[in-house]
Amino acid sequence: MITAIVLINAERTKIRQVGEQLAGIEGVTEVFSVSGQFDFVAIIRLPNNEALAELITEKMANVEGITKNETMVAFRAFSKYDLASMFEIS
Amino acid sequence: MITAIVLINAERTKIRQVGEQLAGIEGVTEVFSVSGQFDFVAIIRLPNNEALAELITEKMANVEGITKNETMVAFRAFSKYDLASMFEIS
Amino acid sequence: MITAIVLINAERTKIRQVGEQLAGIEGVTEVFSVSGQFDFVAIIRLPNNEALAELITEKMANVEGITKNETMVAFRAFSKYDLASMFEIS
Amino acid sequence: MITAIVLINAERTKIRQVGEQLAGIEGVTEVFSVSGQFDFVAIIRLPNNEALAELITEKMANVEGITKNETMVAFRAFSKYDLASMFEIS
Amino acid sequence: MITAIVLINAERTKIRQVGEQLAGIEGVTEVFSVSGQFDFVAIIRLPNNEALAELITEKMANVEGITKNETMVAFRAFSKYDLASMFEIS
Amino acid sequence: MITAIVLINAERTKIRQVGEQLAGIEGVTEVFSVSGQFDFVAIIRLPNNEALAELITEKMANVEGITKNETMVAFRAFSKYDLASMFEIS
Amino acid sequence: MITAIVLINAERTKIRQVGEQLAGIEGVTEVFSVSGQFDFVAIIRLPNNEALAELITEKMANVEGITKNETMVAFRAFSKYDLASMFEIS
Amino acid sequence: MITAIVLINAERTKIRQVGEQLAGIEGVTEVFSVSGQFDFVAIIRLPNNEALAELITEKMANVEGITKNETMVAFRAFSKYDLASMFEIS
Amino acid sequence: MITAIVLINAERTKIRQVGEQLAGIEGVTEVFSVSGQFDFVAIIRLPNNEALAELITEKMANVEGITKNETMVAFRAFSKYDLASMFEIS
Amino acid sequence: MITAIVLINAERTKIRQVGEQLAGIEGVTEVFSVSGQFDFVAIIRLPNNEALAELITEKMANVEGITKNETMVAFRAFSKYDLASMFEIS
Repeated sequence: MITAIVLINAERTKIRQVGEQLAGIEGVTEVFSVSGQFDFVAIIRLPNNEALAELITEKMANVEGITKNETMVAFRAFSKYDLASMFEIS
Repeated sequence: MITAIVLINAERTKIRQVGEQLAGIEGVTEVFSVSGQFDFVAIIRLPNNEALAELITEKMANVEGITKNETMVAFRAFSKYDLASMFEIS
Repeated sequence: MITAIVLINAERTKIRQVGEQLAGIEGVTEVFSVSGQFDFVAIIRLPNNEALAELITEKMANVEGITKNETMVAFRAFSKYDLASMFEIS
Repeated sequence: MITAIVLINAERTKIRQVGEQLAGIEGVTEVFSVSGQFDFVAIIRLPNNEALAELITEKMANVEGITKNETMVAFRAFSKYDLASMFEIS
Repeated sequence: MITAIVLINAERTKIRQVGEQLAGIEGVTEVFSVSGQFDFVAIIRLPNNEALAELITEKMANVEGITKNETMVAFRAFSKYDLASMFEIS
Repeated sequence: MITAIVLINAERTKIRQVGEQLAGIEGVTEVFSVSGQFDFVAIIRLPNNEALAELITEKMANVEGITKNETMVAFRAFSKYDLASMFEIS
Repeated sequence: MITAIVLINAERTKIRQVGEQLAGIEGVTEVFSVSGQFDFVAIIRLPNNEALAELITEKMANVEGITKNETMVAFRAFSKYDLASMFEIS
Repeated sequence: MITAIVLINAERTKIRQVGEQLAGIEGVTEVFSVSGQFDFVAIIRLPNNEALAELITEKMANVEGITKNETMVAFRAFSKYDLASMFEIS
Repeated sequence: MITAIVLINAERTKIRQVGEQLAGIEGVTEVFSVSGQFDFVAIIRLPNNEALAELITEKMANVEGITKNETMVAFRAFSKYDLASMFEIS
Repeated sequence: MITAIVLINAERTKIRQVGEQLAGIEGVTEVFSVSGQFDFVAIIRLPNNEALAELITEKMANVEGITKNETMVAFRAFSKYDLASMFEIS
C-alpha cells in the first residue's frame, strides 16, 4: 500500500470544481481546501506504484483548472507504537 | 472538528527521532516521512481552534530537531458525495 | 470567533475595484492597500470555520482582478494581559 | 494615524515569549500567531511616521527571538462606504 | 515629508516609455533604469501618506507596461550628523 | 558621475549602527531604513566606476552587521525633460 | 563520453506526449516522470560536448509542451571503487 | 523495482568525501557531481518502498557533510518502445 | 572600459535566433548558451556607461524572444598579478 | 576546449582574498566582482571535462570564504559569423 500527499494550486474561479473532481478520483481518500500558499491538499492511498503513476500522470492531469501540483511520496509512516518501542529498546 | 496538515523540515541527523516524537503528540493522527523538499507531513485532527493553537505553538515547538514547519488549516473537505450532488443539481 | 489575515495580489489596473469589492464582503472587517510585495492585506473575523471556508473558496474567488491570495488563520491572539500575567506567574 | 502590518518569524523555542513581548509594545494593537510560512502577524497603529520608525528600528529590534520581520505600511483603508459610493458615482 | 523607493519591472519592449512616464508623475523625483533583477528604481518624495497612497494605487497603476512594482516606505533617513553624535554621546 | 542603489539587510540588533556607519561612508548620499524585505536602501553617487568598486568591495564590506547587500548600478536617469521631448519628437 | 541530467516541467495536459517524445531523442538513455516540483528527469549520455549542445538547444527545444528545462552537466562519476581506494590510501 | 533520483547539496570542503560515501551506499547505482545549483545527483534503484525509505531516512542521513537532499521518486519510465507504439496505436 | 555579464532566458522555440541576434549586437563580445537555470550568458565590453545603458535598454530590448535578462556590472577585474602582489606586500 | 561561467558568493569580509585566490587558479581566465545578487563571476576555459571537474570539485572547493558557487557549462558559443550565415542560408 502506497501513500502520497499532493499539494495543488488551481485557477481561482474553479476552486470548487477542482475540489469536487479531485474527490471523485479513485485512490484519492481525502481532499481539503487549505489556508496558505496552496489551494488543496489531497491524500492518496493506492495498492502499488503503477496505480500511483497512472493517477498522477493520467487522471490528475485531466482535472481542468489545476495550475500546479507537487506530489510527495510517503516513505514511512510513524506511529505511536514506534514511540513506545523507542523508550523500551534504544 | 478541525483538520490541519503540517509540512515539516528537520535536522538531517534527527529524522527518526522527530518522526517518533511527532507521532506521540495527541491530535497528530498520522506522520509520514516524504520525498521532495519537506521531510515530514503530519495530519492533525483536533476538536477546536484552541487545541490546534496549543499543538502548534506549544507542543510542536518543543520537538527538538524541527528546523521549519508550515501549517495549513483545512477549510473544507471535499468528498465523493459532493461530486455526486454536483451532477444532480448544478 | 475566528480571525484570518489574507495577503492579496491584484491586477495592476484593478487595484481600486479589488479593494472596494473586498471591503464589501461580509466578514472582511478591514482592507488595506499596502507597501511591499503584496497589494492588499484583508483582516477577516467570522463566527466559525465554515463561514471562513465559504468566504475564501466562494466569495473571495468571485472578486475579479485578484491574481493570488494567501490566507493565514490566527491560532491565538496575544494581548497586554498575557504580558502582565507572564511577570506575575511564570 | 498610520497603520502597518508586520509579518514575523521567530525562533521555534521562543514562540510564546515573542508573542507576549510584541503585545506589550505601545502601538501594537493586535498580535496573532498564525498558520503558514510566518509565525506572527502584528497590527500597528501609531500617530505618525516617526513613531512607526522608532517602533520598527528600535523597539521591535529589541525583542529577543525574532529572526525575520517584514513591515507593510498601509497606504489606504478601503471600507464598505467606498463600495456604496462606487455604485452611485462611477 | 515622506520618502519611498519603488522597485519596478516592465515589459521588455516598453522600457523607455515606462521610464519616461514614471519621470512625469508628480512626486517622483528620480527614476533610474538599473542593472540586476529590477528594471527601474524610482525615488518618491511627497508631503503626506495620502499623496503617497494616491501615487501608488492610482497614478502608477495607470502607467502602461509596468509588470510588477514593490514599494519601500522610508522609516528614517540616516545622515553624517547621526554618525558624529554617535561618537560623542553613546 | 555614477549612481548606484544598494539594498541592504543587517543583523536585527545592529540596525541603528549599520545605518549610521553607512551614512558615514564617502559617496553614500542618502541612507534610509525602509519597510519590506530589506532593512536599508543606500543611494550612492561617485565620480567613476573605480570609486564605486572600492566603496562596494572594500568600504561597505567593512561595515559590521551587514548580512546581505545587492547593488543596482543606474544605467540612465529619466527626467521630466525626456517626457517633454517625447511628446514633441516621437 | 558526457553525462547530463535534465530536470523538466511540461504542460499538464501533455505529460504523456512529452515523456514519449523525450524518450525518442537519440542520446536520451532514460526518462522518468517523477514526484516533486519537476515533472520529468531525463538522463543523457553523448559522445562529446557538441552533441550535448545540439540535443539541448535544438532537439529538446523542438519537443512541444515543455515549459521549463534545467540541465546539469556531470563533472565526475563517483563509484564504489573510489570508496575502496579511500580506505586504503588516505 | 523502484527508481529514485536525489538532488544533493554538500559542505564545500567535503565534496569528495560525500561523493565517495554516497557511491558506497547499497542501492545507489550512480553518483555524479554536477554543474548548477546542486552538488550531486544520485540515481537509486531498490527492490521496494521499504528499502527506499531506509536508504533516505537512515543511510543517507548518516552521510556527514550533506546539507540538503531532495528525493524524486520515479512514477514511470518512458522508453523508445512507448514512442513506437504511440505512432501505431493512438 | 566597462565589462558587464548578462544572464538571459529566452522562449524555448527561439533559442537559436536569440543567440544569433545577441552575437550581432555591437559591444557583445561573447554569447554562450549554457547549462542550468539560464539559457544564455553574454559578455559585454563597452567604452563607457552611456554605451552600456543604450545596449541594455534599447538594443537588447529589441531582441525578440528574450523573456528575462539580468545584468551584472563588473566592479573590478581580479588578475594573477593581484595574487602575486598579495604575497609580497600584505 | 570547454568554457564555463561560475556565479560565486563569498563571505563579506573576504571579498578581496576570494577574488585574488580565484584569479590564481589555473584555467580561470577572468574574475570580476559584480553588482547584483552574486559577488563574483569567473570565466573558465579548460582543455577537457576532466580538468573542469577537478577545478570545480577540488581547486575551487579549497578557496576559503566562498559560501556558494553555481557553475554554468557553455554548450555553444554564438558569434557574428553565425549571424551572417543566418541571413544567407535560412
